[in-house]
Amino acid sequence: MGPGPSNVAPSVLQAMAAPVIGHLDPAFVKMMEEIKAMLRSVFQTQNEMTFPVSGTGSAGMEFCFVNLIEPGDEVIVGVNGVFGTRMVDVAERCGAKVIKVEAPWGRIIEPQQIAGALQQSRPKLVAIVQAETSTGAWTPVEEISRRTHEAGALFLLDTVTSLGGCPVKIDEWQVDAVYSATQKCLSCPPGLAPVSLSPRALEAAKSRKRKVQSWYLDVNLLASYWGQERVYHHTAPISMNYALHEALRLVLLEGLENRWRRHEANHLALRAGLEAMGLSFGAQEGHQLWQLNAVNVPEGADEATVRKRLLNDFDIEIGAGLGPLKGKVWRVGLMGETSTLENVQRFLAALKMILGDSRAK
Amino acid sequence: MGPGPSNVAPSVLQAMAAPVIGHLDPAFVKMMEEIKAMLRSVFQTQNEMTFPVSGTGSAGMEFCFVNLIEPGDEVIVGVNGVFGTRMVDVAERCGAKVIKVEAPWGRIIEPQQIAGALQQSRPKLVAIVQAETSTGAWTPVEEISRRTHEAGALFLLDTVTSLGGCPVKIDEWQVDAVYSATQKCLSCPPGLAPVSLSPRALEAAKSRKRKVQSWYLDVNLLASYWGQERVYHHTAPISMNYALHEALRLVLLEGLENRWRRHEANHLALRAGLEAMGLSFGAQEGHQLWQLNAVNVPEGADEATVRKRLLNDFDIEIGAGLGPLKGKVWRVGLMGETSTLENVQRFLAALKMILGDSRAK
Repeated sequence: MGPGPSNVAPSVLQAMAAPVIGHLDPAFVKMMEEIKAMLRSVFQTQNEMTFPVSGTGSAGMEFCFVNLIEPGDEVIVGVNGVFGTRMVDVAERCGAKVIKVEAPWGRIIEPQQIAGALQQSRPKLVAIVQAETSTGAWTPVEEISRRTHEAGALFLLDTVTSLGGCPVKIDEWQVDAVYSATQKCLSCPPGLAPVSLSPRALEAAKSRKRKVQSWYLDVNLLASYWGQERVYHHTAPISMNYALHEALRLVLLEGLENRWRRHEANHLALRAGLEAMGLSFGAQEGHQLWQLNAVNVPEGADEATVRKRLLNDFDIEIGAGLGPLKGKVWRVGLMGETSTLENVQRFLAALKMILGDSRAK
Repeated sequence: MGPGPSNVAPSVLQAMAAPVIGHLDPAFVKMMEEIKAMLRSVFQTQNEMTFPVSGTGSAGMEFCFVNLIEPGDEVIVGVNGVFGTRMVDVAERCGAKVIKVEAPWGRIIEPQQIAGALQQSRPKLVAIVQAETSTGAWTPVEEISRRTHEAGALFLLDTVTSLGGCPVKIDEWQVDAVYSATQKCLSCPPGLAPVSLSPRALEAAKSRKRKVQSWYLDVNLLASYWGQERVYHHTAPISMNYALHEALRLVLLEGLENRWRRHEANHLALRAGLEAMGLSFGAQEGHQLWQLNAVNVPEGADEATVRKRLLNDFDIEIGAGLGPLKGKVWRVGLMGETSTLENVQRFLAALKMILGDSRAK
């Protein structure tokens, strides 16, 4: 019940343990096609260039920036937590001139903030984190996307924690570049980063003046391996792709809408239990994520001690606060397989017992 | 029996299927320490900075170059196959001025070639592929390392296909930066790239003028996660690390020397069988790798047809030639778990049957 990795279904673990075959084996190539098709369904996109990058979520972030940005390009980044901050760092390492649009941690990025920044710059790209794992805040992106396109820029979205746990609609929202991770609401072990580029973003990557600074993440090379040519690039992590194939099958078997409703229902159960204990959420009212709950540490409780007791005495892992929220919040994940009513109830019971103890002392 | 991934032991597949725990869980942190210690044994090094990069072998290559090279640095690269060629591309994307030292595919890079290049340049780094997976040639590196250090440069070694299958002695050979992959002679699924940096290389990475161009591969950040501080960087691929932990345990249980002898013995058995059939090797005499055998396609045989029949009729995968060797060689891997006398015999029997057929037709 931390901020990821989430629990993994037995059939996904089982799939991962299948014998390893070659990365150019016809059976594996068929599996690659199925993974691409299922990822398109989960991302709700028709983008041809939709596949898993052979690294964890942060490699997916880097994939988007290294392919789309050239030195000197202006980039607007929404910063309201760890992952917006990380995007600034990654973009700057690509030589971007970054314009930060900031909100306090736990608050969302407002469309008018982006609109204001767009009036004072000529960015190639606007980048937003949909679901800030570090704060539990969920930023609506449709209006931001619209304004970004009116200004002629590309729209990049981080869906690491959102994908599979709440609505993510890449084509409807006109997202040009998106990355995610496997170990959050897809409930697959960490190791791959699903990404998707719109034809417009792909065109931008193809018409660059200089080579992509990363060979490993160059979409122009990866397109020939994940596309029809099957040109050897790197050796794909075979077993991780087995796992992702099965995890995506389970997501689509449940159905995206059903899965979102399950995440919402278990969040509401958690909320009811926490509020009954007098506890509150850290994220902006009305924008609290279902899958990642930042809970304010109450007066008199020691943040780390409670977390350690949950792990040692109750086998429950939750996450600590990061940056300005360090020591101030607990982060309770209800992602994918972990999002069950039983887990909510076990957690609430354990927390009640521990807080009762520590307050009694 | 292709050029990797090699077969994986059942206990490694089993280890990979264990439930996923958090990447900062004390139990996982203990496992990280054990992986680092076992990697040091396998690399035969005392280097503190020895760990698996969260990507495949090519990410390990990129890790070494992005951390050590800054724009304008001179780099000498030995090019005698696909992976030397790839190093040139990766180095140039870091802004390096690359001096190529070339040999025909299948031949080795000679120390005097490097010595000649060192006289006409002031490189920061000399990079060599020890075991060229594309040609089956094994380049001795001790004298090249000595001359590199006499010229004040760092020595970088690709051990993707060598590690675990033939001698790799990082400290004795004074290698400053080394990368490998899991899916060759370590017989672990692909997905991680073991790397090691000498204190001198680490100092070079720390005293850079500008930030490492890759956030994901920046050793200055990774050192805080894989070191004692445990500062969150990215989410490590937990299951892949379970697999590597078990694969390294098996390597050390067998013993490095025993493992090398096994690879040598099975190569000699393959060689005897092939020579009895009138077939020859593509790599330079005396420098044929044990674990990767490039076999010249005989007159009258169709390279792709033979390979396809091996896969479809005998369940044996072997690799095709790449670049100038395309259509000219088969690449037969005897790596890690795949290096058994039974596999050699099955392959020889199948090949004999297919070649008999195709020649008869």
